[in-house]
Amino acid sequence: MIQPQRALQQVLDWGRSLTGFADEHAMEAVRGGQYILQCIHPSLRDTSARTGRDPQDETLIVAFYRELALLFWLDDCNDLDLIAPEQLAAVEKALGQGEPCALPGFEGCAVLRASLAALAYDRRDYAQLLDDTRRYCAALRAGQARAAEAQRWSYAEYLHNGIDSIAYVNVFCCLSLLWGLDMVTLRARPAFREVLRLISAIGRLQNDLHGRNKDRSAGEAGNAAILLLQRYPAMPVIEFLNDELTGHTRMLHRVMAEERFPAPWGTLIEAMAAIRAQYYQTSTSRYRSDAVGAGQRAPA
Amino acid sequence: MIQPQRALQQVLDWGRSLTGFADEHAMEAVRGGQYILQCIHPSLRDTSARTGRDPQDETLIVAFYRELALLFWLDDCNDLDLIAPEQLAAVEKALGQGEPCALPGFEGCAVLRASLAALAYDRRDYAQLLDDTRRYCAALRAGQARAAEAQRWSYAEYLHNGIDSIAYVNVFCCLSLLWGLDMVTLRARPAFREVLRLISAIGRLQNDLHGRNKDRSAGEAGNAAILLLQRYPAMPVIEFLNDELTGHTRMLHRVMAEERFPAPWGTLIEAMAAIRAQYYQTSTSRYRSDAVGAGQRAPA
Repeated sequence: MIQPQRALQQVLDWGRSLTGFADEHAMEAVRGGQYILQCIHPSLRDTSARTGRDPQDETLIVAFYRELALLFWLDDCNDLDLIAPEQLAAVEKALGQGEPCALPGFEGCAVLRASLAALAYDRRDYAQLLDDTRRYCAALRAGQARAAEAQRWSYAEYLHNGIDSIAYVNVFCCLSLLWGLDMVTLRARPAFREVLRLISAIGRLQNDLHGRNKDRSAGEAGNAAILLLQRYPAMPVIEFLNDELTGHTRMLHRVMAEERFPAPWGTLIEAMAAIRAQYYQTSTSRYRSDAVGAGQRAPA
Repeated sequence: MIQPQRALQQVLDWGRSLTGFADEHAMEAVRGGQYILQCIHPSLRDTSARTGRDPQDETLIVAFYRELALLFWLDDCNDLDLIAPEQLAAVEKALGQGEPCALPGFEGCAVLRASLAALAYDRRDYAQLLDDTRRYCAALRAGQARAAEAQRWSYAEYLHNGIDSIAYVNVFCCLSLLWGLDMVTLRARPAFREVLRLISAIGRLQNDLHGRNKDRSAGEAGNAAILLLQRYPAMPVIEFLNDELTGHTRMLHRVMAEERFPAPWGTLIEAMAAIRAQYYQTSTSRYRSDAVGAGQRAPA
């Protein structure tokens, strides 16, 4: 596989064309993306006989890392006001429609979209990626809007939005696009969509439980633990959310045991479910609760 | 429309062929079914031009009431041990597969299934009704099994199961089967399935909030309020569940506003969302929290 340092450089080079892009976005993208690719590497090797897509293909790997970095950057654009509101609106429109950005300073958006369109094993994955991007952006925006509103979300509404804002579906779709994982066909199966919903909720709960100290110190409202504590001060919130995480995980394993999904989906979903133990704990900046730095919530 | 007393008599006559069937099952079925049919009557009149199905057709109305009564009876078979476990297993198998019951005393099951198969405007609704029945029975069974287990459900798992055990989808499917509401086509739309999930969760939360005193006095474990209070004694459970109900209702209205569903679906979903105010409050036995009587949780 491509050396991480070499891949990182290519993500950084690309990121320079995005206003507000930081080294951290590239570093976390390579770190998270590498974790995922390593987990599914044996499966990808098997499917390559059918798809002709090499799991070691440098172009594919770098495109994946760049998309992850884009998701991190978009998250921080919303949370940390890295760019002006009108810039963010133009960026979201461009990314969701696969068009060049109307404002200067974001040439990397069109570069990445054009490259993914060209690399798509199944063109329908590309159309779906645009749709998933619109959902992701809408969820980030809704989270910000709610923080400014008097009316507060219920736990159900928060989690519903958090399923989109965790961007796991975007990650899966990008992998499918690059390595021909046929996600479009799978999405037609209710059980697969249930898996997407469950693994995303798991990711959201893990993220919020892990980031609660950091989110609190940053005055962050986009965290289930903080939201619940504000509404119900007497509630044992951490115990409740840990039980919710356990419950969602049990439900996920039940669906996965009942339904057989083609490789590498089983391994991929398991890798994402295990990401807290395998990935959050080793984060040097974005996910360490005692760290001082940029964004706290993140897509992958 | 058929006089309620006359319809009730026909449900009672049919119910006599089901061991454990009580007058109350028929009475609540007619009361609930009448509420639903009255709400969607103008819409059904409009669609009758396309379907040729008269909203006043006595055969269709009685079949609908009988299916509702069946759902109430099944609920109590699980909760109140109205019949022996092996009888219940045989009944569930027969109803889920559209076959005669292998044990005597349940001839009404095959009668109703044969009549619904013959009346189906779209045969696919009948196949779906069998599937929905299997889900409903599995959810009732899972609720009972869990009550006996050491491992307790999380709120998420409880609500997930409660979405099936409230049986709203069965009610919709039966209406679609009888009056040609094309639910099979709608089920293919993710937004419609989201509506089904939300309205079912709303029904479950309304049911549990309304029945919490009765459920508690009956030592019932199948109630979200009691489940949460047992796990988290310091939690303001009623406030939390009311917020959850409000949140689910907001999400439902958002989807309904964004998506246009053909008549009578908008009216029907609204009628079900309003059922707490319009129906529970006037219940004389099943839903009055101060009442002494049979089952507490109910499908419609």
